[in-house]
This record gives sequence, C-alpha cells and structure tokens, in this order.
Amino acid sequence: MEKILVLLTFLGSVTALLFALFTAKRVLKFSEGNEKMQKISKSIRKGANAYLKRQYSVVSVFFAGMFVVLCVMAATKLLTWFVPFAFVTGGFFSGLSGFIGMKIATLSNARTANACQEGLNRGLRVAFSAGSVMGFTVVGLGLLDISVWFFLLKFVFHLSPSDITGAMLTFGMGASSMALFARVGGGIFTKAADVGADLVGKVEAGIPEDDPRNPAVIADNVGDNVGDVAGMGADLYESYVSSVISASALGVSAFGGEIKAMAVPMLLAAIGILMSIVGTFFVRTGENIEQKLLLKALRRGTNLSAVGIAVIALPVVWLVLGKASLGLYFAILSGLIAGVLIGLSTEYFTSDTYKPTKKLAATSETGSATIIIGGLGLGMKSTAVPIVIVAISVLISYFVSGGGSSASMGLYGIALSAVGMLSTLGITLATDAYGPVADNAGGIAEMAGLPPEVRERTDALDSLGNTTAATGKGFAIGSAALTALALIASYVDKVKSINPEADLSFDIVNPVVLIGLFIGGCLPFVFAALTMDSVGKAAQSVVKEVRRQFKEIAGLMDGNAEPDYASCVDLCTKASLREMVLPTIVAVLVPIVVGLVLGYKGVVGMLAGATVSGFLMAIFMSNSGGAWDNAKKYIESGTHGGKGSEQHKAAVVGDTVGDPFKDTSGPAINILIKLLSMVSIVFAALVVNFSIL
Amino acid sequence: MEKILVLLTFLGSVTALLFALFTAKRVLKFSEGNEKMQKISKSIRKGANAYLKRQYSVVSVFFAGMFVVLCVMAATKLLTWFVPFAFVTGGFFSGLSGFIGMKIATLSNARTANACQEGLNRGLRVAFSAGSVMGFTVVGLGLLDISVWFFLLKFVFHLSPSDITGAMLTFGMGASSMALFARVGGGIFTKAADVGADLVGKVEAGIPEDDPRNPAVIADNVGDNVGDVAGMGADLYESYVSSVISASALGVSAFGGEIKAMAVPMLLAAIGILMSIVGTFFVRTGENIEQKLLLKALRRGTNLSAVGIAVIALPVVWLVLGKASLGLYFAILSGLIAGVLIGLSTEYFTSDTYKPTKKLAATSETGSATIIIGGLGLGMKSTAVPIVIVAISVLISYFVSGGGSSASMGLYGIALSAVGMLSTLGITLATDAYGPVADNAGGIAEMAGLPPEVRERTDALDSLGNTTAATGKGFAIGSAALTALALIASYVDKVKSINPEADLSFDIVNPVVLIGLFIGGCLPFVFAALTMDSVGKAAQSVVKEVRRQFKEIAGLMDGNAEPDYASCVDLCTKASLREMVLPTIVAVLVPIVVGLVLGYKGVVGMLAGATVSGFLMAIFMSNSGGAWDNAKKYIESGTHGGKGSEQHKAAVVGDTVGDPFKDTSGPAINILIKLLSMVSIVFAALVVNFSIL
Repeated sequence: MEKILVLLTFLGSVTALLFALFTAKRVLKFSEGNEKMQKISKSIRKGANAYLKRQYSVVSVFFAGMFVVLCVMAATKLLTWFVPFAFVTGGFFSGLSGFIGMKIATLSNARTANACQEGLNRGLRVAFSAGSVMGFTVVGLGLLDISVWFFLLKFVFHLSPSDITGAMLTFGMGASSMALFARVGGGIFTKAADVGADLVGKVEAGIPEDDPRNPAVIADNVGDNVGDVAGMGADLYESYVSSVISASALGVSAFGGEIKAMAVPMLLAAIGILMSIVGTFFVRTGENIEQKLLLKALRRGTNLSAVGIAVIALPVVWLVLGKASLGLYFAILSGLIAGVLIGLSTEYFTSDTYKPTKKLAATSETGSATIIIGGLGLGMKSTAVPIVIVAISVLISYFVSGGGSSASMGLYGIALSAVGMLSTLGITLATDAYGPVADNAGGIAEMAGLPPEVRERTDALDSLGNTTAATGKGFAIGSAALTALALIASYVDKVKSINPEADLSFDIVNPVVLIGLFIGGCLPFVFAALTMDSVGKAAQSVVKEVRRQFKEIAGLMDGNAEPDYASCVDLCTKASLREMVLPTIVAVLVPIVVGLVLGYKGVVGMLAGATVSGFLMAIFMSNSGGAWDNAKKYIESGTHGGKGSEQHKAAVVGDTVGDPFKDTSGPAINILIKLLSMVSIVFAALVVNFSIL
Repeated sequence: MEKILVLLTFLGSVTALLFALFTAKRVLKFSEGNEKMQKISKSIRKGANAYLKRQYSVVSVFFAGMFVVLCVMAATKLLTWFVPFAFVTGGFFSGLSGFIGMKIATLSNARTANACQEGLNRGLRVAFSAGSVMGFTVVGLGLLDISVWFFLLKFVFHLSPSDITGAMLTFGMGASSMALFARVGGGIFTKAADVGADLVGKVEAGIPEDDPRNPAVIADNVGDNVGDVAGMGADLYESYVSSVISASALGVSAFGGEIKAMAVPMLLAAIGILMSIVGTFFVRTGENIEQKLLLKALRRGTNLSAVGIAVIALPVVWLVLGKASLGLYFAILSGLIAGVLIGLSTEYFTSDTYKPTKKLAATSETGSATIIIGGLGLGMKSTAVPIVIVAISVLISYFVSGGGSSASMGLYGIALSAVGMLSTLGITLATDAYGPVADNAGGIAEMAGLPPEVRERTDALDSLGNTTAATGKGFAIGSAALTALALIASYVDKVKSINPEADLSFDIVNPVVLIGLFIGGCLPFVFAALTMDSVGKAAQSVVKEVRRQFKEIAGLMDGNAEPDYASCVDLCTKASLREMVLPTIVAVLVPIVVGLVLGYKGVVGMLAGATVSGFLMAIFMSNSGGAWDNAKKYIESGTHGGKGSEQHKAAVVGDTVGDPFKDTSGPAINILIKLLSMVSIVFAALVVNFSIL
C-alpha cells in the first residue's frame, strides 16, 4: 500500500515533466521570425544566461558554506547526515526550475512576437504554452524530488518518520534559500533595468519605451526573464514543495507516524497535476477571438481544474485515511476556495475594471503626492479581506479536521488547506508565467520595427497577463501564510523531538514570546526596506551608465551608432548580485541569533510575528504596486487626460514606486517568512541545547 | 500611610496646575503686537474655538451613547455603577487638556511673533512658556483626576482594589476615545487645510506660503492649533493617564491588593512633575544666543529632569515597597533610559544633521518617485532600533522586578517602565508643544507684513521645534507600546476576576489566538488607510473651495479684495468632523465583535497583534514623514538645487505624502492600540459570558 502511494506520486511528477517536454517541443516548432528578431532574442537569451550563470556561482558559495556548517552539525550529532545533502538538492532543483522556465521563456519571446503577426490567438497559444512548460516543470520537479527522497529515506535507508520529515524540511530550506536569492537578485535586476531605462530613455531623452536606441533596453528585457520568470519559478517551486513537506511532517504527528498520512499531501499534489493538465485543454478556443473571451477561456481552464481536484480528492482521502478522517477533505476544500477568493480580492483591488483602481486613477488629478497617498491607502486597506479569508479558512480547516479534540489533527488540517490552495499550481502558474513572455514579445516587436498592430496584440496579451498575475499573487501569498503556520507547528514538533521534556506552552503574555513577536514583526519591514534600497542603488548606477552612453556615443540618437547593450546588462548583473547577498544573510542569521539569545520560545514568537506582519506587508505592497500599474494603464487608455498629460506623469511616479513594491519586496517577503521557519527547524537542535534564555 | 501617599500625589498635581497658571499669566503679559496682528490672531482663535465647540458637540453624542450602553451593562451587573461616570470624566478631562492647550497656544502666537521682533531668545521664551502651560496642564489634570477618583473610590466608597482599578481603567477608555476623536479630527483638519493651501496657493497660483491672499491660510493656522496642539494635548493626556492606571492595576495583582503598590506609579508621576518644573528653570539662558546652544539649553532641562527622577525614585520605591522590591526601581530606570534612546533614534533617522535624511535629500536628484521609495525605505528600516530597545527594556524590567518567579511582578515592572518613560512628560511636552506656536507666529508675521528677519527668527524656532517634536514622538510611541502590553496583562487579570475558572493560557499555536493575532495585526493598516483617505477627501474639498474663490472673487490676487477665510475654516471643520467618526467607531466596535465571535482568547491575540503591528506602523509612518519634512527643509537651505529647483519639487511631493503619515495616521495608531485594550477590558464581562467560541 505504502509503496503504491509513493509510486502514484512519482507517476504524477513524471506525467507533469513529460507534458512540459511535449509542450516545449511544440513551442519550438514555431518560427522565431526574421533575422533581426532572431538577433534580438539571441542577445536577450545571452544576457539572461550570463546572469543566471553568475548568480548560480555566487549562490554556490553560500550553499558550499552552509553545506559545511550542516556537515559539522551532523558530525556533532545535532542533525542526521542526510540533512546537508537534502539541503543542497533542494537548492539545486529550485534553481533548475527557474533555469528551465527562463530557458523556454527566452526561446518563446520572438516566437510569440512572430505568431502575433498572424493573429492575437496564435500569439496567445505560443505564450501560454511557454507558460505551461514553466508551470508543469515547477510542479513536476517539485513532486519528483519529494517522491524520490521519500522513497530513498523510507524504503532504502529505513529512517524513522520524524527523521524523514527532518531531512525533507532541510530540503525545503535549500529550496527557500535559493528562491530568496533568485527573487531578490532577479527582482533587483529587473527593476533597476526598468527604472534606469525609463528614467533616462523615456523621461530625459524622450524616446519611446523599448526603443532600440536605449542602451538599457536589452537589460530591461533580460530583467523580465531573470526576475519575473527565473525568480518566480524558483519562488513557486519553493512554495509548492514547502506546503507539501510541512503537511507531510504534520501528518506524522497527527497520525502517530503512519506513512499514509504523510502520503496524502503528495497524492493531492499529483491529483492537482493531472487535473491541471486536463484544464489546459479547455483553454483552447477558436481562431480570432476577443480578449474578454480569452480571459474567460483561461478562467475556464483554472476553474475546471479546481473543480476536478475537489471531486477526486474526496474518494482519495476516504480510501487512504478512512471515513473518520473525512473532515480533512473539507480542510483541503476550504484551502482551494480561500485561494480563489483571495485571488478575486486581489483582482478587485488592482484591476481597473473595479472602483478602487478607478478612484486611484482619479487622484492623479491633484498630482503625484495624492496618487501616492491613495495607492498606499488602497494597499493597506486591501489587507483586511485576505486576512478575514485566511482567518476563516484556518478556523474551518482546524476544527473540521478534529482540532477541537486533537491539536495535531487540526494543524495537519491547516497544512492540508495550504496544499489544497496550491494544488492547481500547474495551470495557475502557466497563466501567470506567460505574461513576461508576452511582455518580451512586445519589446522585440518594437525593436525589430514590426507593424504597430503586432505591438497592439502583444500589449493586449501583456494586459491579460496582468490580471492573471494578480490572481497568481493571491495564491502565492495566501499559501505562504498557511504554510508558514504549518511550519511553526513543525518547529514545535521538532523541539519536542529534541527535548521531550521541553515546556511547549507559548503563552503570548510570556515576555520572551512577546519579544520574539516584536522582533519577528519587524523583520518584513526591514527586509522590504533593504530590498527597496537595493533597487534604488542598482537603478542609480544604470541611470549613470545610460546617461554616459547617450553623451559619449556619437550618432546614437540618430540611429547611426549602436548602444553598448552588454555593458548595461553587465552592470545590472553586478549590482543585483552584490545587493542580493545582505538580505539573504539577514534572513538566515536572524532566526539563529534570536534562537541562541531568546531560546525556542522566542523563536516561536518571532515566527508568528514575521508571519503576521509579513502577510500584511506582502499584500499591502503587492496590491499597492498592482493598482498603481493598472491606474497608469487606465490613464493611458485615454481617461484623465491620457498619455503625456500631467495626470499621466503623476501616475508614472506611482507606478515607479510600485515596481519594487510588487516585483521585488512583496514577493520576497513571501519567501522570507517560510525561510525563517525552515532555518529555525534545521537549527533547532543548536538552539534547544545552547540558548542563553 | 495610604492616605498620605494619595495626598502627596494630589499635591503634585496641584503644583503642576499652579505652575501652569503662573506661567500662563506671565505669557499673557506680553503684547500681542499691532492691530493687524491682533486681528489675525483673533480670527485664528475664533476658528479654533468654533472647531472645538463643534467637535465636542459631535463627540458628546458618542459619549452619551456609550454612557447609556455602560449604564445598561451596570444595571445588568456586568459592571459597577462607577464605570459610566468614570468613562465620561475621562473623556471630559482629556478634552479639557486639549482645550486649555489650544487656548494658550492661540493666545501666544501673535505674542511670539511680536516678541521675535525684539529678538530670537525673547520669542523662544514666550513660545516655550506657552508650551509649558500645555505640558503642565496635561500632567496636572491627569494626576488630579487619578488621585481624586482614587480617593473617592477607596476612602469614600470603600471599593475593593480590583473594582477600583476596573473603574479607573474605564476612566482611561473615556480619555482614549476622546483622544482618538481629537487626534483624528484635528489631524484631518490640519492636513486638509495644509495640503489645500499648498496645492492651490503655492503650486497653482504661485503665491508664497502664509500669503494673506490665500483663502485657506487662516484654516491652515487654525489647523496647527486644533491638530498639533488640541489633538496632541488630548493624546498625551491619554498616554499619561493610561500608563499610570495600567501600572496601578497591575500593582494590585502583583502585591495581592496592597494599596501602596497602586500608589507607586502615581507617586512616580508626582516626582516627575516636580523634577520637570525644576528642569524648566534650566532652560533659561542669556539674551542673544545661537540656535544650537538653545537646543542644548532645552536638552539640559529635559536631561536634568530625567536625572532628578532617577535619583529621587530610588528612596521612594525603597520607602514605600521595601528593600525586597528594589528591582522595580531598575524597571523604572530602564523605561527612562529606553525613552531617551528611542528619542535619539528618532532624531537620528529624521534630522538633517545625520546621514539618513541627507541621503534621502540626495534621492531628490532622480525625481519624486525615488524620494518616495527612499522615504518609505527609511521609515521601514528605522523600526528595527526602537524594536530592539523596547525588547531589551521589556526583558530587563520583567526580570529585574522578579518576573522569573512571579509573572505578575514582572508585568508590574513592565508597566512601571512605561510610567518611568513618561515621567518627564511635563517638560518634554513643553518642548514639543511650543513648535506649533512658533509655526503660527511665523504665519502671523508673514500675513501682518512684519520685516523678514522676524520670519527668519520664527522659522528658526519652528525648526528647533521639529527636532524636539521628533524626540517627543519617540517617547509617545515607546510608552504606548509598553502601556499596551501592560493593558493586555490587565485584560487577562480582568478575565480571571470575572471567571476564576477561565483557562488563561494564550498559546500562540492555538488557532483562535493566532487568528486574533492576524486580525489585530491588520487593524493598524486599515486604520492608517482610513485616516489617510479622510485627509485626501477633506483636502479635495478645500482645493475646490480655494480654486472657486480665486476664480470668483474679483481683485483677490491684486490684494484689493479679501478672501473668505471663514468658509475654508468651516469646510475643514465639517469635513474633519464627518471623517473622524468612522475610524473611531471601528476602533470601538472591532474588539467587541472579535470578542463576541472568538472569545477572550481571540481578544488577547488581537491585542498582541495590534500592539506589534501598530508599534511598527507608528514608527514607520512618523519617521518617514519626519525625514521627508526635514529633507525638504534641507534642500530649502540651499543644497541639491535649493528652493524652486526640480529637486525641491520632488521633496515637496515627499513632504505632502509625509504629512498625513506623521501628523494624522501615525499618532492616531498610538492611541488606537491602547483604546482597543481599554474597550476590551470594559466589555470583558460581556465577552466572557456571551462569546460564540
């Protein structure tokens, strides 16, 4: 029975990877267009490859260092010997997910632009297929690693269930560290290039966006790939893996070490993959179709996948865990529904079809100060709805799972609701990841001088991508909060396994817990500040370089000379690699230091504080940023004076502030809150044995 | 012995009030200057009076309603009959503090302007004296009410200690509600008028600040008085009273109902008053003195007061509580020191003599977007230092007071550290409250056409006030966090007294506590958004009115016709009164609703969440706002292009965003986190008996 469950999971992951491979082959059959397009696409690919190569070499230093630390801890019996290796593989696969996603994205951008010459729908199909490759690679690799490790630890090395989950959580820590590097580094790259290109090119030199005369234009396109694609891939790989692993770990304590409870989250993920694949077939529609209907087609795909999961999960839970555990099914369901609702709330607050963003656009009438105040207010206010949704979902999943009589069952239920929320990731990520491909396609169309209707089509695809990206962000944030809660519970389990005598009350009125809460609450604020600063610093250096080229390269503005694209790419690469180190080090060191000073009680307080304030900050920053972006687009569509008006200029200020909010700091906080827990779990033995308080 | 302690406290309060009266008489002896100045000052006074009158009438409806609710609860034995009356008197005295402060401020503005004709130092003396009247009125009235109520409840009505503290905490709830109305209403008024006057007058019409042709100029000056003076008075009255009352309440449980433990915080406050009075005499200096030396003189006054308190508190604690309780003295000391350190950290992050604000000013080189990102980052980063200071102070005061063996002693120690932090309030508030007086004096100097050197002097005073105000804000925020923690402990005590069988574990891993934490964490975000929205809406209506007057009143720009000042004042009044209601209602209703749904465990989670995220948001918003303000002033002093440059325009955008941050939302959050606890305590019986979960 147990081996069959693992086999089923393994098959699910292989299916996802085969589907990704098959889709990739189909995408590559499309033509990359004329020579110019091929050349541009090639330089983007080259820049992105060069960045990732150097990013991985910086990251590998960190991983090597941590590997040594973990080996020392293993040698002193604080950890098992599997932990250092699990850590490295987690990081490797997270990075690989980002790499493959970026590879296919950079191979599809020119193909999408070319397909858009033939029609909107053809362009959508290429871009969406590229997104699907990324989506199914992420879930496939995630589940593959989980099932293979599980198989090895359980059936080859015959570890105890708690040692299995211990090693697998380290696997998660590796994935989280890699994801944080990728998100922060990529996020800094993309925003520094974007801001630099806009400030000097658009504002100072007065040339249009994506104009080939702008020296930062290739860097800007490279940024989309290394930030919005590679960063996002590593990020969501981490979210997916963390939610499954933490649920498995809690299953162990809920069911007294029974393997089948550990297998349920994996099976659920496998069901999600199959249903997501089914969903993608429903995205297909006729040839020439309107954008609104296209969105409907995408939605039909994701909604059908969700319904499919809801239907199939019921008998699966029943068969594996028996009738008595049927409450867990409702926990899964509550997660699925909560994810959809959070997505809708994000869409409501950030899409220009609803009141909040329309009202925000209207504040541009009185200048940039009022649109900034309006956007900050919008983001802060928008935290209330997801908070209530998550609160209700936590309550429901805890109590329907039997938390009233057994706390560990309730916590297992919460963890399963996070897995439920992320189970449709294959298809939601596909609809999310196609956006940057369309964005890049637009840039290539502009630079290659394709007819204006091509650019109109890529813009339409890009804008559709914004809406789906908003939903995707909702899922990512909601699942991060639930997973973080599950990881706190795993930490408590871990402390118990290290010291069975430990006092496991974490009373909020206890000053040590309370101080932990304060320090944890502060971390997302500091982290957001660090990453925003980094974007600012990196952008400044790009601004200087672009100004220099405009001044020193004769004939650049007349189109008689080519700018030095490579130097801008190189500059962004160096700046973002330099800047990504400090935030990550902070995230890894703080939980260890707090633990060694305040002890494990302080750590639990810190994790709770970081989860609450991180959830709030992530929603605030993502929604403010999204609303500013769409308010600008809404004005560009002809309202409030339209493009070039004073109102538009005010909206551009809002959008520029929103860029690091939504694409660097906000998403990085999601990873941060989980990484803090993972680090705490891995170093728990150190803290329990050697803390001061 | 017990009566003597109360008598000493009473004498302390009377001394403060007499000192305020004596100082007020001295201020009023100065001349108000020429006829024009008198006329301007009179219309500011008239507007401010009219606003406060209408504010109080709106607030009285709320108080009448709450009075009825509390009477119903008393009739059904959920509360004692003293509670409704204590609630009303708390509100009354908080309002009175603001009223008297505003009265003296509006009587001193023209006097300060006139004194500045004779010299900088003479101007400082008038303005600082006006600030002292306010400072000592606040602490005098606060301590008067506490000592009189205490005397009545204990020696006339012979209530039990826990009933005494119950009634006195309601007194605090009255003060907090009033303070929230005053802060929010006044804060909206002042920022709406400010933004309206600046946007249309300075930016659109191109006339200087405080130009008499600007229809909103009187409203702007009225705003300084009703917001920065009356609002701040009510606010700090509330902080002061809350900290003393919550410490007294915790003294009851720490010392098993001994009255002398309740008296210690009151005595400490009385010592603080005497030392603050002594301190004011050291502020005096020679006639013509430089600004830097003046700041030193002010600092000498506050530092000497702090040292005096530190010295005298030692024998007092010893005499009253005995040698065994001497640890409590160190808790007081840690609060005093923490307050000073937080003040220094605020100054470091917001003063243009230090790196952060200088660097922020430099970001204006690349436009308003980068200065906004820079300011937000600065504020977020600046949360780390006060968090660590408060954390260390909480740990120290808990453990030195004996929290290791008795939790209630430790909590009493934390509460005493808050009282220690606020003990110098008499003099710190004096140095804080003189700022708006100097600001107003500058406006009057401009409008009355006094020679430019007068305006230069008032500007110098105003700028000095900014620095001291930063320190004052640090104290207010730090003490709010400590007091809020003490109030959470009081709430737990209260639940215990209602139901001695209640399970008093508030484990952070318990989903109900956790959800409370999430909801509480969200409240400051929503509250900040609501108040910022209100400022935006009110400002929009002022903008429209000012534009209308410029268009419709012929000869206004040539100086041949007078604008209709009163209509702008009226508009601000209406708008701010309308807008202040919703945030306050939210603050009062949410803890009751959360309590009725989640029960008292959810309430404790909510209070902890609100305290942590409120503390972070208050520091973030105050420091961002302060830094933007000073970065603008730094540029105006001639750096980065100086006044009128593109960089200056970018800095003005930053300052405009910062205005509601630092003068409306930030300070209001301080009150919010205490009001939530107070409401929870007063309605505890309802929640414990009737909650769903």
